[in-house]
Amino acid sequence: MLSKSRVKYIQSLYHKKLRDEEGCFIIEGPKITEEFLLQAPDEILALYAVNNWLNNNDILTRLISPAAIFPVESADLEKISYQKTPNQVLAIVQKKKTLPAHTVPSGVFLMLDGIQDPGNFGTIIRIADWFGIHTLLCSPECADMYNPKVVQSTMGSLLRVNVIYASLENWCKTNTGTDIFAATLYGKSIYQCSPITRGAILMGNESKGVHPSLLHFCKDQITIPRTGKAESLNAAVATGIILSHVLAH
Amino acid sequence: MLSKSRVKYIQSLYHKKLRDEEGCFIIEGPKITEEFLLQAPDEILALYAVNNWLNNNDILTRLISPAAIFPVESADLEKISYQKTPNQVLAIVQKKKTLPAHTVPSGVFLMLDGIQDPGNFGTIIRIADWFGIHTLLCSPECADMYNPKVVQSTMGSLLRVNVIYASLENWCKTNTGTDIFAATLYGKSIYQCSPITRGAILMGNESKGVHPSLLHFCKDQITIPRTGKAESLNAAVATGIILSHVLAH
Repeated sequence: MLSKSRVKYIQSLYHKKLRDEEGCFIIEGPKITEEFLLQAPDEILALYAVNNWLNNNDILTRLISPAAIFPVESADLEKISYQKTPNQVLAIVQKKKTLPAHTVPSGVFLMLDGIQDPGNFGTIIRIADWFGIHTLLCSPECADMYNPKVVQSTMGSLLRVNVIYASLENWCKTNTGTDIFAATLYGKSIYQCSPITRGAILMGNESKGVHPSLLHFCKDQITIPRTGKAESLNAAVATGIILSHVLAH
Repeated sequence: MLSKSRVKYIQSLYHKKLRDEEGCFIIEGPKITEEFLLQAPDEILALYAVNNWLNNNDILTRLISPAAIFPVESADLEKISYQKTPNQVLAIVQKKKTLPAHTVPSGVFLMLDGIQDPGNFGTIIRIADWFGIHTLLCSPECADMYNPKVVQSTMGSLLRVNVIYASLENWCKTNTGTDIFAATLYGKSIYQCSPITRGAILMGNESKGVHPSLLHFCKDQITIPRTGKAESLNAAVATGIILSHVLAH
C-alpha cells in the first residue's frame, strides 16, 4: 500500500505550480507508459503499476531501475490517478530540457497563440508529430504541456516534439527574417497556397483567433474555405487540415 | 426556485434511456441556445436561464412561448447543468425526426463505424457541417448524438446535419450501388485522389479502425500519408483532413 504522503505527493503533480517546482509530471495508461519506457527510460523517476501489467511487461520494465518500480493495488491506483477509470499503470516522468525562448526552429514550425483547451493543445502536438514538425512556439496563455489532459491527448508525441513558451510578439520583433503564415478567416485559400518549406504557421485562440498585434508580422494569411454552414472548425482539426495542405509532400 | 421533481427530470435527460423515452435532450450555454432559438424555436420545450441572460436576449426569447421560459438562480442552474461551470442558460429541446435506416443520402455523406468518443463524434458533426455534408450514417456503436458532450462539441451543427443510426453491414448489402471510400492506413494517398462527388467516406473506430467485414463493400481505401512519427491521428482530425482533400472545391 502506498503511504499517505506518497499519494499526496503524486496528487500534487496535477497542479502546474507543483510540477514546475518538482520538474516532473505524470503519464498514465499502458500505451504512453510503454512508449516512454522504450524511448526515454532514463526520464522515468517512478512507476506505479498493478501486478498484472508488471507481469506482462517484464522485459520493458528492465529498462529502468527496480528501485523505481512500485507494485500497487487497484485501490491505490485509483487514489493517484487523474482518470475516471485508472488504467493499470502510472509514472512520474522528468520534464525534458526546454529550448530557450529565442530559438529559431529550422524548417516549418507551429506558432500557437492562446490554445487554451488542453485536449486541443495535446491533439495539436500529436498532429505536429504526424506531419514531422518538431517545434511548437507557444504563447504563455497556451495550456501547460504537462497538464494531464494535454499529456493524454498527445499519445506519446510529447517525446518527439519540442514545446517552447515565449511571448510571440517579442519573438516576432526579434526574428523578422522568419516567414509567418497566420490562419485566419479571410486569407488566401489553402487550396491555392504554394507549399511552405520554412517558417511558421500561426494558429490562434479557439474563440478569438490570432491576436491582431501579431498579424502585421505575418507574411500571409491562410484560410480553410467553408462550403457548409458551421460557424467555425475546432482548432486542432483546423491545424491538421492546414498542415496537410501547405506542407510539401 | 425549481422544484425537486423538475430538477430530477432534467438530470434524468443526461441518460440515453430517458432521452429516448422522452424524445428530448439538453443544450447548454448561450451560443448554442441562441442558435436553436433563431433556427428552431419550435423545438425548444423549456428554457432555464439566469435573469441577466434573459434581459440581454429579450428579442430572441420572444420567439418561444413565455410559458416555456423559466428564470432560475445560478444555484439552480448548477443543479441541472452537466458542465463544470454552468453557463447562464440551458434548454430542453425536442429531438428531430430521424431519417429511416435505409435512406440513401444524395451527394457525398459520411459513414462512421464505431466513433465512440463523444467529443470526436460531435466534432465530426461540426466538420461535416463546415464542408456542407448533410448526412452521417452511423453504426449503433457510435456515441449517441444527443449525449451532452456530443451536443456541446457540435456547436449547433446538430441543427443542419442528419444523423442516421443503422447496421452498416446491412446498409452496404442493400445499397451495393453506392461507392464507399474507407479511410485506412494502407490505401491510396489523399494527395493523389480524384475528387469524390458522390458516395460515402467511411471512418473507423478510434483504435480499431474500419471493421474488416465492411472493407469488401468499399470501392477504394484512402490514407493520410504520415511524414513524422506519431502512431495515429485523432479520428475527428483525420476526418477533417480527408474531407478537405477529397471533396471537390
